[in-house]
Amino acid sequence: MTTVDLNSDLGEGFGAWALGDDEAMLEVVSSANVACGFHAGDPATIRRTVRLAATRGVTVGAHVGYRDLVGFGRRAMDVPSVELQADVVYQVGALQALAAAEGTRVTYVKPHGALYNTAAVDERVAADVAAAVAAADPSLVLLGLPGTPALAAAEAAGLRTAVEAFADRAYTPAGTLVPRGEPGAVLHDPDVVARRMLRLVTEGVVEAVDGTDVAVRADSVCVHGDSPGAVAMARRVREVLDAGGVRLAPFAPAAAGR
Amino acid sequence: MTTVDLNSDLGEGFGAWALGDDEAMLEVVSSANVACGFHAGDPATIRRTVRLAATRGVTVGAHVGYRDLVGFGRRAMDVPSVELQADVVYQVGALQALAAAEGTRVTYVKPHGALYNTAAVDERVAADVAAAVAAADPSLVLLGLPGTPALAAAEAAGLRTAVEAFADRAYTPAGTLVPRGEPGAVLHDPDVVARRMLRLVTEGVVEAVDGTDVAVRADSVCVHGDSPGAVAMARRVREVLDAGGVRLAPFAPAAAGR
Amino acid sequence: MTTVDLNSDLGEGFGAWALGDDEAMLEVVSSANVACGFHAGDPATIRRTVRLAATRGVTVGAHVGYRDLVGFGRRAMDVPSVELQADVVYQVGALQALAAAEGTRVTYVKPHGALYNTAAVDERVAADVAAAVAAADPSLVLLGLPGTPALAAAEAAGLRTAVEAFADRAYTPAGTLVPRGEPGAVLHDPDVVARRMLRLVTEGVVEAVDGTDVAVRADSVCVHGDSPGAVAMARRVREVLDAGGVRLAPFAPAAAGR
Amino acid sequence: MTTVDLNSDLGEGFGAWALGDDEAMLEVVSSANVACGFHAGDPATIRRTVRLAATRGVTVGAHVGYRDLVGFGRRAMDVPSVELQADVVYQVGALQALAAAEGTRVTYVKPHGALYNTAAVDERVAADVAAAVAAADPSLVLLGLPGTPALAAAEAAGLRTAVEAFADRAYTPAGTLVPRGEPGAVLHDPDVVARRMLRLVTEGVVEAVDGTDVAVRADSVCVHGDSPGAVAMARRVREVLDAGGVRLAPFAPAAAGR
Repeated sequence: MTTVDLNSDLGEGFGAWALGDDEAMLEVVSSANVACGFHAGDPATIRRTVRLAATRGVTVGAHVGYRDLVGFGRRAMDVPSVELQADVVYQVGALQALAAAEGTRVTYVKPHGALYNTAAVDERVAADVAAAVAAADPSLVLLGLPGTPALAAAEAAGLRTAVEAFADRAYTPAGTLVPRGEPGAVLHDPDVVARRMLRLVTEGVVEAVDGTDVAVRADSVCVHGDSPGAVAMARRVREVLDAGGVRLAPFAPAAAGR
Repeated sequence: MTTVDLNSDLGEGFGAWALGDDEAMLEVVSSANVACGFHAGDPATIRRTVRLAATRGVTVGAHVGYRDLVGFGRRAMDVPSVELQADVVYQVGALQALAAAEGTRVTYVKPHGALYNTAAVDERVAADVAAAVAAADPSLVLLGLPGTPALAAAEAAGLRTAVEAFADRAYTPAGTLVPRGEPGAVLHDPDVVARRMLRLVTEGVVEAVDGTDVAVRADSVCVHGDSPGAVAMARRVREVLDAGGVRLAPFAPAAAGR
Repeated sequence: MTTVDLNSDLGEGFGAWALGDDEAMLEVVSSANVACGFHAGDPATIRRTVRLAATRGVTVGAHVGYRDLVGFGRRAMDVPSVELQADVVYQVGALQALAAAEGTRVTYVKPHGALYNTAAVDERVAADVAAAVAAADPSLVLLGLPGTPALAAAEAAGLRTAVEAFADRAYTPAGTLVPRGEPGAVLHDPDVVARRMLRLVTEGVVEAVDGTDVAVRADSVCVHGDSPGAVAMARRVREVLDAGGVRLAPFAPAAAGR
Repeated sequence: MTTVDLNSDLGEGFGAWALGDDEAMLEVVSSANVACGFHAGDPATIRRTVRLAATRGVTVGAHVGYRDLVGFGRRAMDVPSVELQADVVYQVGALQALAAAEGTRVTYVKPHGALYNTAAVDERVAADVAAAVAAADPSLVLLGLPGTPALAAAEAAGLRTAVEAFADRAYTPAGTLVPRGEPGAVLHDPDVVARRMLRLVTEGVVEAVDGTDVAVRADSVCVHGDSPGAVAMARRVREVLDAGGVRLAPFAPAAAGR
């Protein structure tokens, strides 16, 4: 039977400010990228999200980001290696302890926002993230875009890696994401998105923006949950995968760990 | 042979701002209370301090505090239990990962500043700290003032505890600290302080403010290191203990752990 | 013709996090208590709110708070006078410049959350707030609860003051708010709330929890806008006041300033 | 008589953390670039620095920076225009109010660290800074490097500008700073530095790294004060200027304002 993982960014509230509907999304996904406090996520919010994930059997990953609450970790920052590596270790450890306190554990790392984007193109930053993850816990899996420095650096550091596709994004004929800002880069129809993901999982292809099919490999599919429309789309992807006989399974299950 | 631990607050810089002389103090103490980022200590500073501690065989404790950088964790705050507990778990975990990355581990927790003071008198806060430490890692030892709710709560939570004396503080005939602000509360003569601590360790007594001897028990003696004068006093305490045949030994050695 | 002011807390988002519906509330109120960055409100959010307020002719007040983003300024903090006064001046000035940049100006100050509550009972904190407001701009009006140290200190500092009532709160027979947490402290029926406020404005009384009428004086009525239900209640208050012949007018109009 | 301004970065402590010796430097300089809270400077520290500046007749400028305490504003950040402009207005206003509270006022703006460097090469960022300063107060003078987009944008926005030289930096034959990191970029001998600045002020030239003289124009000379050696160098520059008959005068005196 074909399996795939669904991942989403969760725990992204901060104090009085909520973002997204963690409870709803934890009914949809198999892996939760949980904010670690630097771009979002105060400790109480994180702990609640981790507890809900543990209750539902959803795997917990560390969604590490730049230290930039006001920018939600979306602004590129030039952080020296010594600082960036320590920042990543710090965030992973904080989440590990909150996970342990709720009877689960962190099994993977997915950088957030500008850190994700930079690690996907910048070898120095990719190496910093990989070194930090390996230093924090070498059993952690790094989740990222296929063919990027982020994954190459992780493998060079001896880490296991997993690759993801983005449910609501268009692909070029080369199998890369159409950059945000270009026409058609983001897809909005839940049915279209869901059918694309079913094809990706069962056939290994998506239709690119030029109408050709392109091979895309994905251990996990990223779905968003930060708006009512996003939750509905995520649910639709899950439904269509279920109906298509695809079973959800985390790429880095907690039980498979040390 | 008589042994005692010396502890000091370290890793309390933040970014470009330094505080104290960690390298000097790590030659003096056997236990380092390392800031965890909420009252002081950015990840890179913390990591450097932990690395230096590991190199010198100094035990690492988590110096957890209120989330109050501008107030250095010295301002009393009314933090609800859910938030306070998660804050403590978060800080402990962050330090644990940085310690692991440097080949050592966290063996104890000592609250900082206003959190220390509040946990020493407020049972709710004491219970929150104890619950958080137990949730993060039940093998951690809680270091605090003897006879306080902080320690009682830790014991009730199943944690091991250790008690400390303050080298530069005067004691009442009841064996408690003379409150800061009262005349004579803080001692300034390094020789006097050092001789008092030798007596405390070897005889189990200190001279109270009224001239009588009072029994004071201490697994560890807290020395400050945040000014040149403080470092000199800490060194003098160490010298006089050494000369008096007292051997330094951490109360919660890393090797004795899980 | 009878007039009254309606005020509400606005500009309380932070970066990616929204809170409340500023655009909707700016159609309802005559005075906007705008967050100043310490409990909520990043500069871009503040500026947008101030611009919207200016466009609609809504008066801008500085909603100064404790420096506690994660606690939304709702947690009591023991802030020394030197720090608290400087914090208040800083926040007022930041808002003044953003207001000036949008062609309006700050005419009053209303402390937020824990600072509001503390200044209403603690004379030292009340005096600090008053001194800071007077130092920033002695033409500012302080908005607060009648009969509190907050107002007494402001008057002693030479400031003008204004008093407010809370639309959705029950009153004791003594004319004070029934403390939150007590049964019936918060009212939920928009029609009941609206009729109470019309009576307060036109007759100077509200019905207390024991069924008796109590005199309550208010230059302004505080309505909440941080949830869809709150916006609906605020609108209802406005409608009933309009229908009752009460005209909305700011208690500290920008045009009446220096 | 020849005059020049000396400026230095002040108010750069944060809470318990001190940086530099503001009291010493305020005896040396005629203009103080005062931190505004985003890269450094809590309100109480800022207020104390502004008060000392007012007492000594030193002019106050707003040293606005990126919102990056842990990086001290030295890390390049990609901040969208709407956010950057609001951040600058916010910081200027906060300082204006603290200055007003201490009987002085802000007369100029000098961006800090990475914002200074970026505005000196990036026209978008330069335009954002200029627009923000003009929006906050069009009477403010922008201080920057000659020939940079920072100054061009300020002039285009209708602001007055002033140019500065760096006392301890080497210059290329083209009159630009030798980039940090290149050999000889930073000068360390106080006497050499002082004599260079006297020549710059009286003859309008400095000796470039290739030994030729190059024309450098400066309304102000920037001296550092963040270390004992830096203070000594600043004092030496002042002494040699004094002895050379150069009178210190602020380029944007408070008295010349509105």
